[in-house]
Order: sequence, then structure tokens, then C-alpha cells
Amino acid sequence: MSKLKQLNDRVISRLNTNLNGLSFDSNAFVSAAIDDEKMMRFYAFYGITAHHPISFDFKHSNIAGSYFLGKCHVSRSTIYKSDIRGDELKKKGDPIDCVKNIPLLDDEMITIRDSLLYKTLVHSHSHNPESPEEFSIRNTIAAHYSNIHGSTLVGCFLYPFATVDLMNLHASIIGPFSYVQAGELFHRKIGAGTVWVKHPEFEFKYRFAKEILSRYVQVDAEYQPCGIIFDFVKQREKEYERLFDVVSLKPLDFPESSAVNRYAVIKGKTIIGENVLVAQRAFLDNARLGCGSNVQENAYVVDAHLEGMNVTAHGAKIVHAQVGFKTFVGFNAFVHGKKTARVQIGKGCIIMPHTIIAPKVFLDIPDDHLVWGYIRSFRDLDAHTISLSEFETVKEEMILGKLSFSGNGHAFIKANKDRINQILKANGAFFQNGKNRGHAQDGQNISFNTLQPYATGENRGIFPSVCIDP
Amino acid sequence: MSKLKQLNDRVISRLNTNLNGLSFDSNAFVSAAIDDEKMMRFYAFYGITAHHPISFDFKHSNIAGSYFLGKCHVSRSTIYKSDIRGDELKKKGDPIDCVKNIPLLDDEMITIRDSLLYKTLVHSHSHNPESPEEFSIRNTIAAHYSNIHGSTLVGCFLYPFATVDLMNLHASIIGPFSYVQAGELFHRKIGAGTVWVKHPEFEFKYRFAKEILSRYVQVDAEYQPCGIIFDFVKQREKEYERLFDVVSLKPLDFPESSAVNRYAVIKGKTIIGENVLVAQRAFLDNARLGCGSNVQENAYVVDAHLEGMNVTAHGAKIVHAQVGFKTFVGFNAFVHGKKTARVQIGKGCIIMPHTIIAPKVFLDIPDDHLVWGYIRSFRDLDAHTISLSEFETVKEEMILGKLSFSGNGHAFIKANKDRINQILKANGAFFQNGKNRGHAQDGQNISFNTLQPYATGENRGIFPSVCIDP
Repeated sequence: MSKLKQLNDRVISRLNTNLNGLSFDSNAFVSAAIDDEKMMRFYAFYGITAHHPISFDFKHSNIAGSYFLGKCHVSRSTIYKSDIRGDELKKKGDPIDCVKNIPLLDDEMITIRDSLLYKTLVHSHSHNPESPEEFSIRNTIAAHYSNIHGSTLVGCFLYPFATVDLMNLHASIIGPFSYVQAGELFHRKIGAGTVWVKHPEFEFKYRFAKEILSRYVQVDAEYQPCGIIFDFVKQREKEYERLFDVVSLKPLDFPESSAVNRYAVIKGKTIIGENVLVAQRAFLDNARLGCGSNVQENAYVVDAHLEGMNVTAHGAKIVHAQVGFKTFVGFNAFVHGKKTARVQIGKGCIIMPHTIIAPKVFLDIPDDHLVWGYIRSFRDLDAHTISLSEFETVKEEMILGKLSFSGNGHAFIKANKDRINQILKANGAFFQNGKNRGHAQDGQNISFNTLQPYATGENRGIFPSVCIDP
Repeated sequence: MSKLKQLNDRVISRLNTNLNGLSFDSNAFVSAAIDDEKMMRFYAFYGITAHHPISFDFKHSNIAGSYFLGKCHVSRSTIYKSDIRGDELKKKGDPIDCVKNIPLLDDEMITIRDSLLYKTLVHSHSHNPESPEEFSIRNTIAAHYSNIHGSTLVGCFLYPFATVDLMNLHASIIGPFSYVQAGELFHRKIGAGTVWVKHPEFEFKYRFAKEILSRYVQVDAEYQPCGIIFDFVKQREKEYERLFDVVSLKPLDFPESSAVNRYAVIKGKTIIGENVLVAQRAFLDNARLGCGSNVQENAYVVDAHLEGMNVTAHGAKIVHAQVGFKTFVGFNAFVHGKKTARVQIGKGCIIMPHTIIAPKVFLDIPDDHLVWGYIRSFRDLDAHTISLSEFETVKEEMILGKLSFSGNGHAFIKANKDRINQILKANGAFFQNGKNRGHAQDGQNISFNTLQPYATGENRGIFPSVCIDP
């Protein structure tokens, strides 16, 4: 048996044990997703900057095509074309979340063990007070375009396009295109197309109708993705190859205060403002990015204009659209206008993660609105948007179409706005006169160490152990 | 002061201390050779194969553009566009040279410390019985296209195109285009253009006339190279850039039993036979390489035909020439025919290292001859070639032109022939039916880890510490 197969079989057996009782067998997913030849073909890369603590320790794994930044320890794992971005890890001396007066004894690090991540994003830092110095992923399988954002996981399966955000997850399954930010979950199975935010002060819950979701994201019998959103990504996959084929790219023209990762696709007439971050594996084509905007991993901005201070979260897609100043577009949101049916979104809006906007005619969303769910026409706006000021008046409960919200609307909006500001700050959107540095400034001038596996012999496909330190 | 400057200043001060008394200041060489911007621009690479023990440990250094293979430990050094090829290191259990019944306790490794190597080749293994498990280079500066072959060095300066072979060298200076294989030397200065082989049974000594050497290899006041041989290399330098710019090259057509390194330039109508090794930074243009041939680092074969079983040693150049079966062309030899003045060399010849053959008309060297020195015409052959059988009859001394030989001619020829066989064997020239593997077979399917320095900050130009293990 090849070492690669052994590696994956170990992950499968550990995960299946964890998911015992949820009638799930990860074997089908792994057999269908993993292709030994592809695991051989792509190099992994580790980012070197003067601004991120450097420590990469890596053993007994295949990390084909994956990107690592900051302190990352990886062992006995398969990490395929994933982004492990440790630029928001806590530093030695930082206060522990929830326990403000206890400083961290060490820099935080990402540790991934006995796991399989497939085209997955890992970002932010541990929000688990039990392990403030360790952002840990164990015995877990994450499928295509899933996002593990500030969440520690043990024994979990994430379906394609699933997102777990700022939480701790034990022995659970998150369905395709589901977004969960729910503190802590044990041994749960979250159905497909669920958007669920649970907080002591409020709970937001939406679920896509099955017949709608199945058109956009569906998985086959082997949990492999299909549908409109997957096709959108698949059609553009080839554009990335060039980035990996050459060592140095022709420098692009963008302001000194901005960072455009050399592993991002930049096409067409694209204009980049000040303090902008374009992350690796972002995709820009005829994109106009206003000052302080960012486009995160696996996010697409095509024939679109972001007016400024816009967050385009991991996996969000914005096509034939204009997005107003300080409007936030959440994880995996699919804002898909057409040439003949553009989407215009006002300023200060919050587009919830995993929202689908795909109109047949021009669609206009006013300023300062909360937006969620599935929108194809003006008529859909009634049940899937609400002005922030109206939402803030909710005291106990609101049912609107398939959305059920309970708790304090004002607290919900405040939490979101605080977070958006926090994201803009972290990304360097407020950088001025050398102050308020963020990813847009610290992510410039990245050097890369690239790593390849053994090409032959008994270790074929396994990457030699590598340890990188300052 | 930049970290790079500090690094080089430390090397200079250590070397100058070692060379105290030989009125030499390495400062001039380092200031003229080292360009901080170039040290930033090129990535280093480490070769991964199933056939070489893997251990790369590297600290506090700049290794821009350099290649490493096998067990290499590097610290506090600048290694610029050099080849550190540890594929002939001794293995645990191998007998120590000279002390056949004592096996090595560990795999041998190359250790480079407090040194500056500039476009230098390091190959073979330690021939120093004091350190059989360590091929060590310390407090040493090696200039352009110098070869450190199986030699341990402490506190030495090698001028451009100098070669030290199978020896131990302490606090010594080797002049430009000098070849030395002399057991052990302490605090010596070897003049320019010296070809010196010293052995208990014989001594071979030739020295180029100053006025001739100055046309081919000369150094300026800052010990930087110039002259015809340097120009030859310089003119072809740009051809290598493409190799470093792309990640995967179009596969070439050559036999399965041969290895063509992806960092070699292959141009024109080049034909490669069975069991051939083409090393990184070799250069082939309209080259026909017969079975069992090899072309080593910095060697050029242009408009030339090697009939088979040919060694083209590190830095040798063969242009407009035909080289007979099993003829050996030594280190840095310059066999430079022209379209109208080809060089034809018979079979079984030994072209001594650092020989210059540059005729104005067609030149024909018969089979089984020893060739050395400087040859421009048929007339020169008398004083610079001799048949092997005649040479074997020398019992005590032979003076021929500028060559002085003493000792046993038969022993000299036997030592050379044994070595040529040994080289062919090591390179896999005799591979058949899965037996007699060598570099040509073990150097296939190499994967590469590539490394880049910090691009900004106080560590700018320094490569982060890297440790690679199986």
C-alpha cells in the first residue's frame, strides 16, 4: 500500500470513529477526491515575511499545492491546495480572549494532525479558551472550499462550501453550503444550506429550500460538489495554473500601501486602490477595488466595483455588481449579476455569509440593509433584506420568510459592525502615515519557500520533513 | 550595517586571520563580487530523491541561487550560485579511506561554516582521514568557477577557476586557473596557472606561461575574473535564466537510464545516449552524448560529439570537437575548436585538468595520449602530448617543455585510469539490467524544495533557518 494511501486511511479510520453514531463513512469522499498523481504534481509554499513569526514544522504528510503563513505545525495529514494562513494568530503576551488579564505564554500556532483538508481555508486564530495558544485541527476532513475560520475541530467532517466560524466543534458534520457560528457543538449533524449564528444574546437561523440549494451547491453520492457555484469555480480553475508555473511574475501596478499576492489571478482592466489586500487564490477580472477593500482567499471579483472599505470574505463571489462603501460580503456569498442584470448594493450593508443573489433583471439593494438567503428578483427583497435600523428594533423574535431570529436585534447588528471594523483594521484598511498596519501592509514582499514530495521510492508522494525557523 | 554585510565581514576577518603572512586581503574580492540585490533575487534549491540520504540544515546564511543535494549543513555563510553536490558522500558502515577495516559510524555530511563560496562547485567526499564523516569547508572564500572536489579546507582563498582535488588544505591560496591535487598543504600560496599533482609515487607539474594565461584567465586588482574563458561563460549566462524562471519545463526526450537535470541548458539538436548524466548548470548545444558519457556542473558541450564513456569534468568546455570513446576531459579544460578548425581527439585519451586546446586549424590528437598545457597547433602537440604507453615507461623523471614529471609513469597512468573508471562507475555509465546504478540513474526524478530570503526588515537577504529531514 502506498504511503499516501496509508496516510489517508489513517485519517478515515480516526474520523469514522469520531463520527460513529451519525451514520457517516468518510471513505467515499476520500476515494473520490484524492488522486495520487495530483498529490505529486503541485508544490507547497511557505510565506516568509519580516512581519509574521516564522515557524513551520511539518512531518509525514502530503501538502500538495497548499500555502502556509505564520506558525504552522503539520503532521500525518493530507492538505491539498489549501490555505493555512496564520497571520492573525495571537502573539506571546496578548490577552487570552474572555480572560483579559492573563497574557499568553507563547505565540499561538496552528497545529494540524491526522487530518485531510481539501481546497480548504484556515484563517484567524483559536477562539477556544481551552487552547488559546493552539489553533488545532485534528482527525478532521474538510472538503472543497470549506472555511475553517477561528475554529478548533476534532473529528469533524465539513462538506463542500461549509464554513465554521469562531467556534469549537467536536465530532460533528457540517452540511454543504452551511455556515455555522455557534460557540461550541458536540456530535451534531448540521443539514445542508443552514446559516446559523448562535450567541448568548441572539440567534439567527436560515435554511435554504432543498430544491434551490440543489441547483447551486449539491453533493453526489461520494460527497463531491456540483452545481452552479462549483461550476463557477471550476470554469476558472485553469487561470491559476500560470501562477504556479513561473517563479517571478511581471510586477503589477498598485499602490505601495496595498498587497496583491503573487498567487492571485489578476485579469482585465483591474484597478487597485490604497490599503487593499488581495489574498492568494483571489480572482480579479475587470475589478475596481476602492481604498481599504480586501478580497480574500477563493473570492472572485469580476466585472465589479467595490467602492471602498469593502470586505470580500473567504470564498465570496461578486460578479457584474457595484458594492457600496463599507458594505460587507460574507463567506461564500454568491452575488452573481449579469451584464444585462447587474446587482447594485448600497453602502453600509451586511450581506450575510452564504447568501445567494442571482437576479434576472437589474437589482438594487438600498443602503444600510441586512441581506440573507436567496434573492432573484425585487420581490425576493421583502423576505431577505431588512434595514439595519428596523432590525435593531427587534427585541425578542422576528420571523421573516425562512429566517427565524430571536434575541436582541441591536446586539446582532452591533456584533456584526464591530466585527467588520475589526476585519478592516486587521487588513490594514485604516493604514495612514505608517500607523495602523495590517495584512495589506504586512503581506507585501513575501518570499516563498516551495516544497516538493519524493518523486519515487517507498516515500513517493510524501513530503520530506521540513522545519523552518527564523 | 545590513545582516548580509555583517555576514561577509565575519568571513573576511576570519579568512584574513588565516592568511596572515601571505599578504592577502580578501576584502577587495568580497566588495567587488557581492551585490546585495543579486543575493536577494535568486532562490536556493535542495534536491529530494529516494536515493540520497536527506538532511539539510541551514542557518544564518545567504544561499542565493545555490543547489544542495544530500546531507549538507550550512551556517554563517554566503553561498552564491554554487553547487553543493553531496551524492558521493560516504555512508554509515562504509570503510574509511586508508583504514579499510574501520567502518564509519555515521553518514558523511558536508559542513560549510563561516565561508563564502561564489559560483563554486563542491563535490565528492572528504579524503581527509582525520574527518571521514565530515566534508568540511571553514573560514574559506572560493571565487568564480572554482572547484572544491573531495577536499577539506580551513582558511583558504581560491582564485577564479581554481581547482583543489582530493586533498586537505590549510590557510592557503590557490591561484587563478590552478589545479592542485597534493595531499595536504599548509600555509602555501600556489601561483596562477599551476597544474600540480603530487603523490607518493609521482609528481606532475606544469605551469602556464604568464602571457598565455593572461589571455585566457586573468584577475583584476579585485581578484575578479576576465579573459577568454570567463567571457565564454559570461556570454552564455543569460541562457540559464529561463531554467530558474519556470517551475516545470517541457520534458525532454532521452533514455530512461539517463538523467538530465532540469537546471541544465539543453539547446539545438542535442542527442543523449543511454546511462548519461547531465548535471545541473551543464550546457549542451548541438551536443551528441554517447552512451555512458557525463557532463558535469559548469561544463559545456557545444557543436561537439562525445563518442561514449566520456567524462566531462566540472567546468570543462568542449566546443567544435569530437572526443573519442572513453577519453577523459578534466576539470576546467578548455577544448575550443572552431567551425573551420575542429578538434578531433582519439579514444582513451587523458586530457589533464586545466588544459587549453584552441587551434586555428583542424587538430587531430591520436588515441591513447596524455594531453596537457596549451595547444594551438600541430607543432604544440610535441611538447604537450605523449602516448600513454611511452609515458608508462618513465621511471624517474621526464621534462617536456614546461612539464616536469618525476616518479613512476606507469603508476601515474594507472592512477588516472583507475580514477576514470571510478568516475564512470559512480556516474552509472555501466548500468545494465538494473545493476551498477549511479548518478545517471539516481539523479532522475529529483524533486526540489526552493528557498527564498527575507525580502524586507532587519533580516533582509538572510534565508530563514531551514531543516529538511526524511
